[in-house]
Amino acid sequence: MTHYKLALLGFGNVGRALAQLLMRKRTELKERYGITYSVTGIATGRHGYAINPSGIDLDGALDLFRTGRTLDLLSKVKVSNSLDFIRQCGADVLFENSPVNYETGQPAIDHVRTALELGMHVATANKGTVVHAYHELKALASQKGRKFFFESTVMDGAPIFSLFRGALPGAQLKAFRAILNSTTNLILTRMENGDTFDGAVKYAQEIGIAETDPSGDIDGWDAAIKVAALATVLMDIPLKPQDIDRTGIREVTPAMIAAAKAEGKRYKLICTAEKDGTSVRGKVAPELVPLTSPFASVEGTTSIIEFQTDVLGNLTLIENDPGPHTTAYGLLADFINAVT
Amino acid sequence: MTHYKLALLGFGNVGRALAQLLMRKRTELKERYGITYSVTGIATGRHGYAINPSGIDLDGALDLFRTGRTLDLLSKVKVSNSLDFIRQCGADVLFENSPVNYETGQPAIDHVRTALELGMHVATANKGTVVHAYHELKALASQKGRKFFFESTVMDGAPIFSLFRGALPGAQLKAFRAILNSTTNLILTRMENGDTFDGAVKYAQEIGIAETDPSGDIDGWDAAIKVAALATVLMDIPLKPQDIDRTGIREVTPAMIAAAKAEGKRYKLICTAEKDGTSVRGKVAPELVPLTSPFASVEGTTSIIEFQTDVLGNLTLIENDPGPHTTAYGLLADFINAVT
Repeated sequence: MTHYKLALLGFGNVGRALAQLLMRKRTELKERYGITYSVTGIATGRHGYAINPSGIDLDGALDLFRTGRTLDLLSKVKVSNSLDFIRQCGADVLFENSPVNYETGQPAIDHVRTALELGMHVATANKGTVVHAYHELKALASQKGRKFFFESTVMDGAPIFSLFRGALPGAQLKAFRAILNSTTNLILTRMENGDTFDGAVKYAQEIGIAETDPSGDIDGWDAAIKVAALATVLMDIPLKPQDIDRTGIREVTPAMIAAAKAEGKRYKLICTAEKDGTSVRGKVAPELVPLTSPFASVEGTTSIIEFQTDVLGNLTLIENDPGPHTTAYGLLADFINAVT
Repeated sequence: MTHYKLALLGFGNVGRALAQLLMRKRTELKERYGITYSVTGIATGRHGYAINPSGIDLDGALDLFRTGRTLDLLSKVKVSNSLDFIRQCGADVLFENSPVNYETGQPAIDHVRTALELGMHVATANKGTVVHAYHELKALASQKGRKFFFESTVMDGAPIFSLFRGALPGAQLKAFRAILNSTTNLILTRMENGDTFDGAVKYAQEIGIAETDPSGDIDGWDAAIKVAALATVLMDIPLKPQDIDRTGIREVTPAMIAAAKAEGKRYKLICTAEKDGTSVRGKVAPELVPLTSPFASVEGTTSIIEFQTDVLGNLTLIENDPGPHTTAYGLLADFINAVT
């Protein structure tokens, strides 16, 4: 039996889902993997910091959060900021779930770097760390004999990175094709059913899928950062979101969608990457997909990715109904894989 | 750098594809995994046995096979039968690819047992070993500190077993739904396009997909053995093909198929399993699938499986265009995973 001290940096939807999943899986972790754990630190964005070397009561922390009180009430230690939190939390594993910064990857990169330097394993759902610092952080982790894992950065908790790390040894990824952004997928579906572009955007905002400024989704930036992350890790060629040939869905008109529907086709925002020697061509653009393709069956927040390798026929993964709980599972899987 | 001596028992389409893949991946195995290898034994069904402790020239072996000569010409040792071959081949890893015996799993089970007892890792594409002796062989492997892997028994080389072994830690498989038999899939597609049942069977035989006696496919036995193998390993509850509630496709008439087509649906031979406490209900039966489902897009030899777990939304894998080369890849992946 091995005991691990865990710290949660970020206690939003994903962080709280992770706390619940950890509680639900406590017995299974013990029986299947010989793992026991205590959570010695929780850092929130606006509800303070808690550090307790003897372990924080997760139900108590969730309750404080729910009732709008500060987690400082649970802390044995005074914490001044997130880096101070990492230095004082005394954890073996840091779950890094601060908000994504698409342009610089900060402050998440500093969080990961600090934790690795202190000898912690790190699991993160933050794409910024992968597209802006993958090679540096991977090298640092390796030098420290620790793991830097990030399964939840693309397609939530669906096993993408771990698939190539373990289940597909000796396979070379040559290309992939995917639908990775749910907001645009939802907007295009609404437009097929007669809604206008603006109406569909408004609907996506109302149900909480699209941001107040929806341009990150609509102009393809979210899809581009995911293509960059996948290419950087799985094809081992660093790629930035700006390197992606990117077209959003603003130019797709209701008339184009109706014409496509009449020929039995659907518009989807398709992500592709193709490796060519030592370079990768990445692209995000609306494409017509025939109804006979599994890509046409992808609705709402569901994601799909088709991998082309040198050893198998095309291999496709579809993840249905992702959410904070599936992102949380990806983080738990990273933890288990890091320590077993 | 670690050197492994390999033995190939079975030199049919899959065994020969494996020999070719091993040659193609020689440099990559060395550079990525620090693995070098020599093939010290090849056992064929009707072209003799070759054992050479210094390593067999694979091109030479393939050439002898192609020109109908016996591999005995390459042997330094006289071999009397397959068990004798295993005892004398001196390998660290046995690739077991003898023909499947659905009823007893023999002689493949004896092959695997003998190899494990001699301290070899075993990778097999033979379903019979899994449904008839999984728990025994797994325990024996564990006792000997060796691996018994069988990725290629279901969906060829697509990562199914390794997905749950490594990429989905802490996940409980609750149910799955799949199309796993290509012959019936092809027959149903031909019937949708106007062919009769008998005509479609004949076509499948002509292109080499269906056996001379096609009842193993048509009556759902092949699908049932795959359901049994998946349930036995992934749900950890032993299930035999006879335990599966099995209906083949003989009762599906052209009139039923035409009526389904008119409503935008397709008949598929669907495999399902559902875990309920300590038991599993397995079923193979024709079902109507709506065209909006990814199951409807599965054509020809393509396979699909949808997993329902306690931690993710439904996760679906589709494998396109499998063949002997993808089965061979599953065996190579098992080898790499066994020794790294």
